[in-house]
Amino acid sequence: MKLATYKDGTRDGQLVVVSRDLSIAHYATGIASRMQQALDDWGFIAPQLQDLYETLNHGKARHAFPFDPALCMAPLPRAYQWVDGAAYLSHDTLETDLSMSQGSGDSFVGPHADIHCADEALGLDFEAELAVITGDVPMGASADDALEAVRLVALLNDVSLRLVAQRELPKGLGYVQSKLAVAFAPVAVTLDELGDAWDSGRVRLTVQSAVNGRKVGMCDAGADMAFHFGQLIAHVSQTRPVRAGAVIGGGAVSNAPVENNGKKEWPKGASSLMEKRAIETLLDGKASTEYLKPSDSVRIDVKGKDGQSVFGAIDQKVAPLAA
Amino acid sequence: MKLATYKDGTRDGQLVVVSRDLSIAHYATGIASRMQQALDDWGFIAPQLQDLYETLNHGKARHAFPFDPALCMAPLPRAYQWVDGAAYLSHDTLETDLSMSQGSGDSFVGPHADIHCADEALGLDFEAELAVITGDVPMGASADDALEAVRLVALLNDVSLRLVAQRELPKGLGYVQSKLAVAFAPVAVTLDELGDAWDSGRVRLTVQSAVNGRKVGMCDAGADMAFHFGQLIAHVSQTRPVRAGAVIGGGAVSNAPVENNGKKEWPKGASSLMEKRAIETLLDGKASTEYLKPSDSVRIDVKGKDGQSVFGAIDQKVAPLAA
Repeated sequence: MKLATYKDGTRDGQLVVVSRDLSIAHYATGIASRMQQALDDWGFIAPQLQDLYETLNHGKARHAFPFDPALCMAPLPRAYQWVDGAAYLSHDTLETDLSMSQGSGDSFVGPHADIHCADEALGLDFEAELAVITGDVPMGASADDALEAVRLVALLNDVSLRLVAQRELPKGLGYVQSKLAVAFAPVAVTLDELGDAWDSGRVRLTVQSAVNGRKVGMCDAGADMAFHFGQLIAHVSQTRPVRAGAVIGGGAVSNAPVENNGKKEWPKGASSLMEKRAIETLLDGKASTEYLKPSDSVRIDVKGKDGQSVFGAIDQKVAPLAA
Repeated sequence: MKLATYKDGTRDGQLVVVSRDLSIAHYATGIASRMQQALDDWGFIAPQLQDLYETLNHGKARHAFPFDPALCMAPLPRAYQWVDGAAYLSHDTLETDLSMSQGSGDSFVGPHADIHCADEALGLDFEAELAVITGDVPMGASADDALEAVRLVALLNDVSLRLVAQRELPKGLGYVQSKLAVAFAPVAVTLDELGDAWDSGRVRLTVQSAVNGRKVGMCDAGADMAFHFGQLIAHVSQTRPVRAGAVIGGGAVSNAPVENNGKKEWPKGASSLMEKRAIETLLDGKASTEYLKPSDSVRIDVKGKDGQSVFGAIDQKVAPLAA
């Protein structure tokens, strides 16, 4: 099934069930009002949401309405845990360990939210990635067991300040100032929605990203994911339990270069401007792409094997600088 | 006022108001059922809680009951953001910058919760510290403005795995596997409860910590706090807004050594075994204190100027290793 959260003036919004083709939706009122509530009690609530989803897909839900992504918050507007992995190693082949870092889950935003940046000189960038939202995971779960705890898959833009990170990361304590509000595609989906594209913890689909309508990447999310989502969750839960509603990201989707006449090429592009700039530097000796500026737009989408958008698109604009 | 959360079988528990002397309590039912709810709408809810608190302190609350810390969850059992600072620089005087790191807010625990550690060889340690719980803070708030957003002060044990951190920190991305569930003292308090001891973002009280009944530290939380809580919050909100319910920690309370006949001494001790071991190494060439083992107990408390416990005590035991 496909789930979204509609704005209603509250911090957690209203849970809605969305049809497979993203055309219509229905409030989940009477089943669960908030996404976290569904995640807290998934075994009881999910089957009821699934029933509503099927009724909706058959055109038989009595109070269905046209689905409008512009009215969406993030599917889970606030999360008690957001940990991002670096599951794609191809742009840094010296690193073979799994690295993950904690983020802030207090202000996820919807697919059309403006990006508010304090200063143009901070290296504003997007980062197109997939994430899973988990149920409860016991301490010491194996990667296989951890996969069983995946409830939903989501598409997100991990908005980053690259020049702040350059200053912050050498302290060794991760990101505090160098990440802005993470934006999510309109719907989060259960694994059955991905069909064969869900391959034991990897999503074998293409993540498309564009800035101002120009392609930045058409990256294969499955091919070069060195650690699958079960491994990422197991990493987090190795020494402590993980609670329902944790959002575990795979990191910016990235593909290894191909060799052509002894020269490296990146035909699939990149899922962030930082990687695009790194590729340009490798090929041309310098980066020609600039970081995001006010009024720039970012679009991220994933199409299923049927050509339809799986999660709906992220479509954000950089707001004018605050006065 | 003093607020706690009672266990009720749910993940968020029931908000209770606790009398100043921690002897009696009253459910906040009818005002707010969960702590996050109060934080989300503080301006409206806090005055009502304050009224109940005053009635309770005057012995006039009709459904008051004896307060039992053993029935407490953390005052805020789950938080959308937990960022810990290193506001005490005295044990590492080369560092003059403020360092902060994101933690996981998905499983805070109550004052008597057992500490569950996967393996005795991970360097299990306590860390006695104070934290504030915030309201909404706009992006770019000054340290002074950020102080205005402090809603509550709390006492916590940031349970740490030192030998995991040794492996994890060199990656530069902070703590993911090297922190266990943070335990909180029974009540969180508003600033007026601290009286003069709240000194423009610093708490001028002594944090007492003991392992197996033996003193580890009687550290002054105000004297050597290089960055006050307003500065810590402003650091986090420099590039992004911080939302209501963020927990911002000051880091393990620590005091600079004093010179005595040309020799350094630490009369106030330490607020973690790591620091105690570092002091032993400086004085004796080697650390004689071992990290925590199963059945060890940790007690952390803060007394007000009237000699009474401000937050109630944290009193935890290390559980037997999981089979």
